[in-house]
Amino acid sequence: MSKDLHTGFDETQYPHINQGLAGIVAFSTTKSFIDGAVGELIYAGYNIDTLAENATFEEVCFLLWNDRLPNAEELESLNKSLISERELPSPVIDYIKSTDKSAEPMAVLRTAVSMLADTDPTKGKFDEALFMDQAISITAKIPTIIAAFDRSRKGKDIVAPLSSGSTAFNFLYMLNGEEPGTQAEKTMDLCLILHAEHGMNASTFTARTVCATMSDIYSSVTAAIGALKGPLHGGANTAVMNTLLELEAEGKDADAVAFTKAKLAKKEKIMGFGHRVYKTFDPRGRHLQKMSEALSKETGHEELYKWSMDMLNTMKSEKNIDPNVDFFSASVYYSIGIQPDLYTCIFTMSRISGWTGHFMEQAANNRLIRPRALYVGEKNLPWTPVEER
Amino acid sequence: MSKDLHTGFDETQYPHINQGLAGIVAFSTTKSFIDGAVGELIYAGYNIDTLAENATFEEVCFLLWNDRLPNAEELESLNKSLISERELPSPVIDYIKSTDKSAEPMAVLRTAVSMLADTDPTKGKFDEALFMDQAISITAKIPTIIAAFDRSRKGKDIVAPLSSGSTAFNFLYMLNGEEPGTQAEKTMDLCLILHAEHGMNASTFTARTVCATMSDIYSSVTAAIGALKGPLHGGANTAVMNTLLELEAEGKDADAVAFTKAKLAKKEKIMGFGHRVYKTFDPRGRHLQKMSEALSKETGHEELYKWSMDMLNTMKSEKNIDPNVDFFSASVYYSIGIQPDLYTCIFTMSRISGWTGHFMEQAANNRLIRPRALYVGEKNLPWTPVEER
Repeated sequence: MSKDLHTGFDETQYPHINQGLAGIVAFSTTKSFIDGAVGELIYAGYNIDTLAENATFEEVCFLLWNDRLPNAEELESLNKSLISERELPSPVIDYIKSTDKSAEPMAVLRTAVSMLADTDPTKGKFDEALFMDQAISITAKIPTIIAAFDRSRKGKDIVAPLSSGSTAFNFLYMLNGEEPGTQAEKTMDLCLILHAEHGMNASTFTARTVCATMSDIYSSVTAAIGALKGPLHGGANTAVMNTLLELEAEGKDADAVAFTKAKLAKKEKIMGFGHRVYKTFDPRGRHLQKMSEALSKETGHEELYKWSMDMLNTMKSEKNIDPNVDFFSASVYYSIGIQPDLYTCIFTMSRISGWTGHFMEQAANNRLIRPRALYVGEKNLPWTPVEER
Repeated sequence: MSKDLHTGFDETQYPHINQGLAGIVAFSTTKSFIDGAVGELIYAGYNIDTLAENATFEEVCFLLWNDRLPNAEELESLNKSLISERELPSPVIDYIKSTDKSAEPMAVLRTAVSMLADTDPTKGKFDEALFMDQAISITAKIPTIIAAFDRSRKGKDIVAPLSSGSTAFNFLYMLNGEEPGTQAEKTMDLCLILHAEHGMNASTFTARTVCATMSDIYSSVTAAIGALKGPLHGGANTAVMNTLLELEAEGKDADAVAFTKAKLAKKEKIMGFGHRVYKTFDPRGRHLQKMSEALSKETGHEELYKWSMDMLNTMKSEKNIDPNVDFFSASVYYSIGIQPDLYTCIFTMSRISGWTGHFMEQAANNRLIRPRALYVGEKNLPWTPVEER
């Protein structure tokens, strides 16, 4: 019998339990579009290739928040606002300086973003008129948090943000204590553009789910950071680099083909390959691949690119699986001198633009998000006193 | 044409966009069952009435974590573990003491729980063998965080946790600086039991979504706190009390019937009524109603109970809507001397048991959770240089 009278569930309505919600359409959005079959990615009207060639990260932020590109005056105004919001409130600096040096960077970022709410005069009030300023404030402060914790845990002085320059330039300056070169800034900026937005991934979905309770933007972003931290989501690029470092430990002549085949034979998961949406080469991967090739030559780490290509070709021939965005971002970040355990933080620094864009979109057309669970346990068991159990 | 070749979406497969995921079954669970039609609630086999009459909150924690009741030895062991984990690491105490006194209690709780990860020697490692100890540690520390912040913001000394006594007893002791009476402890314990678990609500769903990226239990619980904070979820009980306080401001003779009708006429939302799942009286509400009645007599605030009943009867006759769990929990908490802006924190203190139970269930049978979004924007727009926009 299909209808369980006791539970009220009509099983004919639920032919299966959709544990991952794959294929369920939960939203309409103007933020991004992915055609996984042909490898196309669009942010609010613009192809990722167009943006990668022409835009700055700040223009992409404006685009994701407003669904159009800014004019010159609007862009200048946004740049000024982002610059003016870079400094951290003193309780956040105190926390970053005093917390355990072995703390995970993503955990520190999660805590620090959450803490920003305390000194916001509106406490992150859920009010459409305030969302843009809240998004700008958090977007501006995330790079400062990441750089401050990285320096603090290494026993170095925290570098105050600049009162000029792009997000990418200022971040590399705060991280390294010296101004980056043009190529490093450009690479960083492109990485920020490529990771800014990507449909209904797990962290964006988390951000919208929290928004839907009409909580606040700090709660929403803090939750999204927690989701992105997971190795099945943003944590993957750190794992990719750790794999490349395993090869590096074998020396410059390491055989990445044999290494990959051995891992496959042991049924070990190889990070950086495969994607639930893309069934072909990830369009972001192409930009990162070009950059990885150029950087590996410039920095004299050509083996990194060679190993990457050997792994890619082996995965394609053995398993017919293409690399995802994490695969090449790992070696790109490594080449510009960023250590692996910060990669997911840098992903956050970029994706904050997409999360907050989705937050505003959700708030403008809100409904509480809660699917159902099918109960498969027992019911109405009699009580047994503890001494008789 | 039903299949959009460009998007790859087959629209016939998506007859509508299910924005709230209502009715979509995303999980099987042994944690709880709700029959909204008859008003039945079961935690892992046991009816909420059975548990309300017989169990302690600590037994309910064990039940939600293990899907069975503990024997005497197991319960003693759990009680000991919970007691031994009550103290906060010093960075968390420092944060609570130094943060803005006007910070929202739920925001402080969110930050403090997130911060616990830094001093966990395993950093919340995603490892089945560690989940139970992680759950115990967070469950034990949440009451300490709440009481410490409430005292700190009032300029009072923080009271260290007791090395004995129930969660309810110790919490009221830390909050008020004196041992609670038997009735207050019993009331608090019952409130903790009634709010411990409730199917696939927004915060539990958030906790599972974050868990599914294989992030960590701190990320998961921090995200859930952010979701519970929202007025469409856990924040509702604070809003209910604020409504009762509006009546109180009118004096003891305030007319709650006229008050409710006036709000309805102005189409204002009246908090504490209606529920997506229950179409009848929430079974938890019955226990809380009894408690509210008894307490209002004991404390000499009989008008609170009378106003509540007048509101309830007016909502039933005017709109045929029943009260939800938040409606009576507000006046119960108020009667035992807890101020309204802490109510959602107390909900958290209880619901942590359900969240962590679901975290372990999700981890044991995991799949990344990400539904889809239908893109409704433009595609492949040409680039316009900024000076021409």
